[in-house]
Amino acid sequence: MASNLVWKLCRPPLFRQLASLRSGAEIRHFSSIDPPPENISRYPVPYKKDLPHDIVDLMEEVESKGGFLPNVFKVLSHRPAEFRAFFSYYNELMNKETGGLTKADRELIVVATSVHNKCLYCVVSHSALHRIYSKKPTLSDQVIVNYENAELSARERAMLDFAMAVCRCDTITEQHFQSLEEVGFDREDAWDISAITAFFAMSNRLAHLTDMRPNLEFYNMGRMPRDKNKDKGNVKGE
Amino acid sequence: MASNLVWKLCRPPLFRQLASLRSGAEIRHFSSIDPPPENISRYPVPYKKDLPHDIVDLMEEVESKGGFLPNVFKVLSHRPAEFRAFFSYYNELMNKETGGLTKADRELIVVATSVHNKCLYCVVSHSALHRIYSKKPTLSDQVIVNYENAELSARERAMLDFAMAVCRCDTITEQHFQSLEEVGFDREDAWDISAITAFFAMSNRLAHLTDMRPNLEFYNMGRMPRDKNKDKGNVKGE
Amino acid sequence: MASNLVWKLCRPPLFRQLASLRSGAEIRHFSSIDPPPENISRYPVPYKKDLPHDIVDLMEEVESKGGFLPNVFKVLSHRPAEFRAFFSYYNELMNKETGGLTKADRELIVVATSVHNKCLYCVVSHSALHRIYSKKPTLSDQVIVNYENAELSARERAMLDFAMAVCRCDTITEQHFQSLEEVGFDREDAWDISAITAFFAMSNRLAHLTDMRPNLEFYNMGRMPRDKNKDKGNVKGE
Amino acid sequence: MASNLVWKLCRPPLFRQLASLRSGAEIRHFSSIDPPPENISRYPVPYKKDLPHDIVDLMEEVESKGGFLPNVFKVLSHRPAEFRAFFSYYNELMNKETGGLTKADRELIVVATSVHNKCLYCVVSHSALHRIYSKKPTLSDQVIVNYENAELSARERAMLDFAMAVCRCDTITEQHFQSLEEVGFDREDAWDISAITAFFAMSNRLAHLTDMRPNLEFYNMGRMPRDKNKDKGNVKGE
Amino acid sequence: MASNLVWKLCRPPLFRQLASLRSGAEIRHFSSIDPPPENISRYPVPYKKDLPHDIVDLMEEVESKGGFLPNVFKVLSHRPAEFRAFFSYYNELMNKETGGLTKADRELIVVATSVHNKCLYCVVSHSALHRIYSKKPTLSDQVIVNYENAELSARERAMLDFAMAVCRCDTITEQHFQSLEEVGFDREDAWDISAITAFFAMSNRLAHLTDMRPNLEFYNMGRMPRDKNKDKGNVKGE
Amino acid sequence: MASNLVWKLCRPPLFRQLASLRSGAEIRHFSSIDPPPENISRYPVPYKKDLPHDIVDLMEEVESKGGFLPNVFKVLSHRPAEFRAFFSYYNELMNKETGGLTKADRELIVVATSVHNKCLYCVVSHSALHRIYSKKPTLSDQVIVNYENAELSARERAMLDFAMAVCRCDTITEQHFQSLEEVGFDREDAWDISAITAFFAMSNRLAHLTDMRPNLEFYNMGRMPRDKNKDKGNVKGE
Repeated sequence: MASNLVWKLCRPPLFRQLASLRSGAEIRHFSSIDPPPENISRYPVPYKKDLPHDIVDLMEEVESKGGFLPNVFKVLSHRPAEFRAFFSYYNELMNKETGGLTKADRELIVVATSVHNKCLYCVVSHSALHRIYSKKPTLSDQVIVNYENAELSARERAMLDFAMAVCRCDTITEQHFQSLEEVGFDREDAWDISAITAFFAMSNRLAHLTDMRPNLEFYNMGRMPRDKNKDKGNVKGE
Repeated sequence: MASNLVWKLCRPPLFRQLASLRSGAEIRHFSSIDPPPENISRYPVPYKKDLPHDIVDLMEEVESKGGFLPNVFKVLSHRPAEFRAFFSYYNELMNKETGGLTKADRELIVVATSVHNKCLYCVVSHSALHRIYSKKPTLSDQVIVNYENAELSARERAMLDFAMAVCRCDTITEQHFQSLEEVGFDREDAWDISAITAFFAMSNRLAHLTDMRPNLEFYNMGRMPRDKNKDKGNVKGE
Repeated sequence: MASNLVWKLCRPPLFRQLASLRSGAEIRHFSSIDPPPENISRYPVPYKKDLPHDIVDLMEEVESKGGFLPNVFKVLSHRPAEFRAFFSYYNELMNKETGGLTKADRELIVVATSVHNKCLYCVVSHSALHRIYSKKPTLSDQVIVNYENAELSARERAMLDFAMAVCRCDTITEQHFQSLEEVGFDREDAWDISAITAFFAMSNRLAHLTDMRPNLEFYNMGRMPRDKNKDKGNVKGE
Repeated sequence: MASNLVWKLCRPPLFRQLASLRSGAEIRHFSSIDPPPENISRYPVPYKKDLPHDIVDLMEEVESKGGFLPNVFKVLSHRPAEFRAFFSYYNELMNKETGGLTKADRELIVVATSVHNKCLYCVVSHSALHRIYSKKPTLSDQVIVNYENAELSARERAMLDFAMAVCRCDTITEQHFQSLEEVGFDREDAWDISAITAFFAMSNRLAHLTDMRPNLEFYNMGRMPRDKNKDKGNVKGE
Repeated sequence: MASNLVWKLCRPPLFRQLASLRSGAEIRHFSSIDPPPENISRYPVPYKKDLPHDIVDLMEEVESKGGFLPNVFKVLSHRPAEFRAFFSYYNELMNKETGGLTKADRELIVVATSVHNKCLYCVVSHSALHRIYSKKPTLSDQVIVNYENAELSARERAMLDFAMAVCRCDTITEQHFQSLEEVGFDREDAWDISAITAFFAMSNRLAHLTDMRPNLEFYNMGRMPRDKNKDKGNVKGE
Repeated sequence: MASNLVWKLCRPPLFRQLASLRSGAEIRHFSSIDPPPENISRYPVPYKKDLPHDIVDLMEEVESKGGFLPNVFKVLSHRPAEFRAFFSYYNELMNKETGGLTKADRELIVVATSVHNKCLYCVVSHSALHRIYSKKPTLSDQVIVNYENAELSARERAMLDFAMAVCRCDTITEQHFQSLEEVGFDREDAWDISAITAFFAMSNRLAHLTDMRPNLEFYNMGRMPRDKNKDKGNVKGE
């Protein structure tokens, strides 16, 4: 079935990694049988039983791998066809394995541009992902307040300067590309930075429309150095 | 093949309609054998022979139906996977046949928000589509300069006020929805308005990245009242 | 009579040129006997019979030469004394035959600064004049959306950068003049650029006050390459 | 001669009143034989001997009536034809004797909008005129800092709110006119407020271009209550 | 001694409370013998041995009570006299025991206004204090991104609306006070809200000057629900 | 008593100097027995009899030395504890006798930043002080309208550029310090500039809260060159 095949494209390695990284202790499991939680969206969140199979399959895969289902899946499932397009695009940009951007870089772009757009959901969830991927527990908090004096490398700063120019719809000039090239990014990286910024320009606005609320789990994810022994226990328990 | 199936979803009724509307005389046919035109993108535009079949198929369908291939297809084909996600999403939002928004409404949203974002490609191409769908040859020009004093109905004005709030990332409140409801839009329409605005927030930024240039055809499309006789001929020819 | 003499100064070469350029076919003649059209101004538009002779004379000369009477003449005739001062100043700035600015340059300045000021009348009418003088049918549309990525020469770009600085009331410094000099403009040209920008800063605001509406003729003027045969006819008719 | 007749229209009652109001003691007379003072303009200021007679005649009348020649006359005489258009328009707007605006009202509009535009010349010179006409020596200083908490009447506040909307190129709506009507201004007054604002939008920009410097006399004019005896002496001396 | 008496006024109840609240486990003790840490200020941080006794006494009291010395004490000790004035004022505003504002309210005002001012130090440190006082571990993170859609009570929202008006230097009107009164704040509360906002307008700018860096302890403080048993152990350990 | 000792620190040399500078003739003495004047604050101004002795002592010293009591003393005495902290800090920053800033420099910083913040009280009172300290009667008026084209030295301009960066909460970088160093300011001067800017960021906001009105005396202070004979008389009279 078409929708099934769409989801073949959309293998969610992000969530797989999340699963292996997170400390089970700090996340309360969300039962897939529960009714939709209140107040995560201004729009109705469908019951799983009412959703197309491909969407339910994806949700369950994400939840089982990541330990909880990020609310963006629930909120956008109000429009299944748009849900498919959204996550297909998301997957393409955030989970690609080529190019000069690390996973932490991608998340940092999302954080910096989403805070410019005052998007609660994206800032809270992607700063969590940044903490996990970068293993820097405070950098995203700094970027949230002011990326201009955050403890960034010259490379990260040039990346965010470019992303912010795209975010603000500045007219992009050769000078912008040269600033990237000075720190080692080529034109394909520039496209990646821009496409992520552009996608979240969309995503931030959908979150504003729906008043999308971040899962509580995101607020603390990746903040604490994990206890070695505890981790071993978790691995066993999983 | 998966990509084929994606394109089944992406039936382009927009371009089909374009074809039936345009006055053949005012558009110079773009030959599909020609090399990519210069200066439509800052990034390389692939030759058709180097593109995946599904993308070429789509391009040829669009071109044969619409008379020319909008440059956005060429420019974004630099990244085939993102191309597929982009047009799949585009199709979902702009060509859906349900809800309270007319095709002209959708185009007007794109025009008003894209001019806020100073996006040459989207303003020029979607004001052309608006002229065709609305049969109002000057309204989009008015909206481009200042939608606040354009000759809009109260319904159109409320629609654009909402779209602009989303475009600017204002915090959306119940008051925003009530203003829509006063002119007959329900919450699903609000989602449609927002999703289009959000999608073009993305699209505008990709156009800035690539310095995407509109096809010359778009500038004049839909400006002239068509010659009755000529029209008859066109109808016959179809 | 004094007012007569004012109008001697105000020989309207602009409108004379317009007359020779426009394609008669695309303009519906406005009869000078007709009552004032509705909705071109928020203020009453006087009947010609109630206007001073010098103003009527000017209007008729403009209309006979240009094929239609731009609405700004009708709207501002609500205040005859200000009308005289306005067009006397306009004539001095826009029709002078000395200095480094071409007629197309002058119109481009008006377009770029008037769109910053969201002035529907001036953008629509002066982009029409720019199309005619420059014989570039799409450049003004580009400048309307974003002059920063329009297909401008370096000289045009420096001219508009200067005009925009004046338009925004930036503090003008020697650096501004040097940027002009690098592309061949001297200080007298700088004055011309500024005076035009300044005059339309005034004009734009009068248009906002009166909700001045552009004549329909302006929207399409200069867009179409003229039919050779038709042109011949026109040349004969002149 | 035409230019002579233009100046018949341009009877400068403003300067006549200035003359009768100012305290001779606080103003140093500027001798008409002196070379142009340095640093009042970025552009050359012509010697009187090189200026057309009508312009010299006007300057001498203004200087003899007002006690000194405001620098705007000297600076703009660099372009005699534009000088004539400028002062003809100025005279029409600022010296008209009809309508609901007092002379002090007109000056207050100039002060409030010119400070928005950061125009040194217009703020300093017209706040002086406001002090003289209004006999309120501190109100213009308050408006310069923040008209929103200046000691204005409701009528003055509504007038400045309207002027500022025009100054910023806000889209003017019926609501704007109603706010004026609530404090007694009709539509013709609205035109006057707007036309003055619009004219100084132009004037401010010309002052920025030329780096026009106010005469020292303006800074203190109208600040001090005049000594009765001294005044008598002045009247005799005139 | 005068300075001693100043510090009598400046009893630091804030830090005392901090001490009783924090979980010892999550804070690394800062030894008072250590050299100043690198990179907490752009200006030299004095050694304690070089500081006046009253300042050292205060620092040691704060550190012993709170478990660590907030970097603002170290950074501002570069200027002892200003240090005294700063903390005396701070103490007066943040530790007063009268009026309608809770300690959590005060911290929330600091967070919301400091994020507007992009002040890393104040946002990170005072969001920590807000988490502790409010026992709401996520509310300050929401306010940091966008207080307009944070999970605030109507009372908190009105408080922050007022604080933001003061923060932006809006002209404060009776309407502002009425909005506060509708949720139960009187004029003395309005003064408190404003004085805190005003003080941190100063504080934020000092932090920008010095590039003041928050202590690592602040980032996580108050995020985790404390383990009851662990707490008991901590109490014993202290 | 503690409060007494605080005021020992707060020796008001500023007001002492004011006293020796002002021309008695231009200031009406404010009797300390009078009730509080109306309309200098939105909050109640206490009677002296109800104020703590140390505050009354300070007020009387200031008034006897300076000839009148600036309204900021009256308005802030509504909160005696905050009054003490405010003036103690003020004294530290504005009256210090070390560093590279002259008294006129300090006042100029206050004027430029307070006008950005639209603070009537601070602009009017500190432009008066600037006129007196600098003996330049028009420079502050120029800075109020637009410091960018005021007649400033390069040193003053760099000083105000830095102050404005702090005022706007720009992220301060090494480049900012280098611009200061190029005109001879070191890092301690940079701190002074910033601390004054920061303190008045606070002060401006308190003035907005209270709608603090400047004493009439300030508007004209320092504008007139003093009459030598009159001055002698004043010196005798004091």
